[in-house]
Amino acid sequence: MKANAILVSSGNWAPEPWAEAVRAIDPDRPVFLWPDVPDPAAIGYVMAWRPAEDSLKGLPNLKLILSLGAGVEGIVLRDDLPDVPITRIVSDDLTARMSEWIVLQVLLHHRQQLAYQRFQRQRHWRELRQSAASEVRVGIMGMGVLGQAAAKALADLGFGIAGWSRRPKDLPGIECHAGDGALDAFLTRTDILVCLLPLTDATRGILSMALFEKLGRNASLGGPVVINAGRGGLQIESDIVAAIERGVIAGASLDVFETEPLDPGSPLWALDNVVITPHVAAFSSPAELAGQILGQIAAFEAGRPLRNLVDRSARY
Amino acid sequence: MKANAILVSSGNWAPEPWAEAVRAIDPDRPVFLWPDVPDPAAIGYVMAWRPAEDSLKGLPNLKLILSLGAGVEGIVLRDDLPDVPITRIVSDDLTARMSEWIVLQVLLHHRQQLAYQRFQRQRHWRELRQSAASEVRVGIMGMGVLGQAAAKALADLGFGIAGWSRRPKDLPGIECHAGDGALDAFLTRTDILVCLLPLTDATRGILSMALFEKLGRNASLGGPVVINAGRGGLQIESDIVAAIERGVIAGASLDVFETEPLDPGSPLWALDNVVITPHVAAFSSPAELAGQILGQIAAFEAGRPLRNLVDRSARY
Repeated sequence: MKANAILVSSGNWAPEPWAEAVRAIDPDRPVFLWPDVPDPAAIGYVMAWRPAEDSLKGLPNLKLILSLGAGVEGIVLRDDLPDVPITRIVSDDLTARMSEWIVLQVLLHHRQQLAYQRFQRQRHWRELRQSAASEVRVGIMGMGVLGQAAAKALADLGFGIAGWSRRPKDLPGIECHAGDGALDAFLTRTDILVCLLPLTDATRGILSMALFEKLGRNASLGGPVVINAGRGGLQIESDIVAAIERGVIAGASLDVFETEPLDPGSPLWALDNVVITPHVAAFSSPAELAGQILGQIAAFEAGRPLRNLVDRSARY
Repeated sequence: MKANAILVSSGNWAPEPWAEAVRAIDPDRPVFLWPDVPDPAAIGYVMAWRPAEDSLKGLPNLKLILSLGAGVEGIVLRDDLPDVPITRIVSDDLTARMSEWIVLQVLLHHRQQLAYQRFQRQRHWRELRQSAASEVRVGIMGMGVLGQAAAKALADLGFGIAGWSRRPKDLPGIECHAGDGALDAFLTRTDILVCLLPLTDATRGILSMALFEKLGRNASLGGPVVINAGRGGLQIESDIVAAIERGVIAGASLDVFETEPLDPGSPLWALDNVVITPHVAAFSSPAELAGQILGQIAAFEAGRPLRNLVDRSARY
C-alpha cells in the first residue's frame, strides 16, 4: 500500500486553509485534518505547526514531517518525535516580510519616532539630536536566512552590522561572531540588538537582565534597544520590564511573548518606548507555502534531496 | 584686490557654526556674518540659507552663491538675485538621512504601525490583514539625488517603485514618468506617494485635493498615503485635513509645513494616521558640509568646473 496521504496537525492554526491549498495544487493527494484520521497507515506525511499531543503517534508509515513555519521548536522539542526527517519553511515572502518589520522597528527607535509622536500629541515642535545610521551599531543574534536578509537590508541603510550565531559564518560586510565565547564582545559593540534565534534549550531566556547590561550605549538612542522577532521563550519579560524601568535599556520592540496572546494585565503594554505587535512580523500564507511543501514531497518521492532540513541534533 | 572673503547669510539658522566650520578647515579665509560686513568689496562668496533681505545686494565682487542645503527656493525665487552661479549641497550624509526617514515613514504606514500602537494602548491583541511590500506601489515625485536614493532603498525592500519628474529619466528598476502629461498615469498607479519635489512656481500647492483624488488604493493600507519631505509650500494643508477627514487619503507623514514651526492650533497635529515631524528628515551638518563648500570654492578659484549647479532657468 502506498502511504501518500498528508495529515495536517496545525495546533492553534486553522487546518482547513492548508488542506484547501494542497488540494488546489494536487487534487489527487488525500489530505486528513487531525484528529480525523480514518486510516493512520495511509499517512506518509505530516504538515505540522505545534502539532497536537499524540498527533504524531501511531502513524506506522510516516516518512516526513513538514513544518508550516520557519521556527520548529513546537516540533523538535517534544519527547515523542518520530525518527523521520523534518523540513522547515524557507520562503522569500516570509523572509521579506520579516525584513520589513525589523527595518521598521530599527528605524523607529533610531529616528526617535516614539518621542516625536509624544511631541505631536502635545502639539510641541521640538527637534532632537540625531545620529546618522553609520554611527549606530546593530547586532543580530541568529544569522540564518532571516537574520542574513535583515542584516543586508540594515547594512544597505548604512547601519554598522554584526551577527552572532552558534556556528561560525563568513558573510560579506558583516562582522561575524560565533559561539558562547564571542557573545560578550558582540553585545558590547551592539547599540540595537535584533533577536532572531531559534528557541532551543540553549537559547531559552537568553534575553535577560544579565545580557541587557552588556549592551552598548549610543548617545542619540538614550541607551540600548532590544528587538525580538524570534520566539517569546527567548525573553524574560519581567527582566525587560525592569530593564526599561531602570534605564538599562532605552526601548524595545516585541512581536513575540512568553504566552500569546499577551495577557491584558502585562506591564509590557504600557511601557514608554516599548512597541508591541501581536506576532505579525512575518507569516506563512497557505497558498504560497503549500506549493513549496508539495515540491518537497515530490522531491522526496522521486528520491531527490530534501531542502531546508532541520538539524535534529541541534534542535533547530 | 582679491575678493576671497565668505559672507554667511543663513536666515533663521545660526551663522556661527558655519563660520567656525570654515575656519577649522581654512583659517586664512576671511569669513563675515551678515549683517556685519565691514568691507563689501572683499566678499567673493556667499554661503546662503534663506538669505536675509538685502544681504545679497551691494557686493560688487560677488562670484558665487553656495546654498547650505539641497533645496534652493529661498535663494532662486527672489527678485534681487545677483547674476552669479549658484551651487546646492549634495551630501551623502544628508541623502542617507533622508532615505532613513522616508523608508521609516513608508514602512510605518505599510505595516499599519499606528493602528498597532492604538491597539497597544488598549491592551488589545489583534492581527490585521497585511500586504507584502511587493503588492504596494510607491510613487516618488522628484527624482533628483534624494528621490533616486529613496527609490533604491524602497525597491530593495520589495516595493513597486515609480518616479515622476519634470525631465525624463532612465533609471534601472524604476518606472519613470516625466512631465505634466504623465502625472495622472503616475498618480493612478501610486498607493503611497512620496514628495521630494523642489519648491517652484510650478510645484507650489501641488499636493492638493485634486491630486489626492487621483491616487490608487491598496486594500491593506485602507487608502492612499501621502508623505512630504520636500517643502511645506508644496502642500495645501487644509486639503490634507479635508482629505483625511473624508477618507480620500488614509494617512500622511509630514516633515515640512506651510509655516514652520507648525502652529499649535493646526488641526494636522491631532489627525488619525498623520505623522508630524519637525523638519528633521535630513539636515546639513556644518562640519560635514563646510568641507564640500570650500572644495567648490577651491575648484572655482582654480578654474575647474563647479559641481551641483542650480539651473537658474528652472529655478531649482
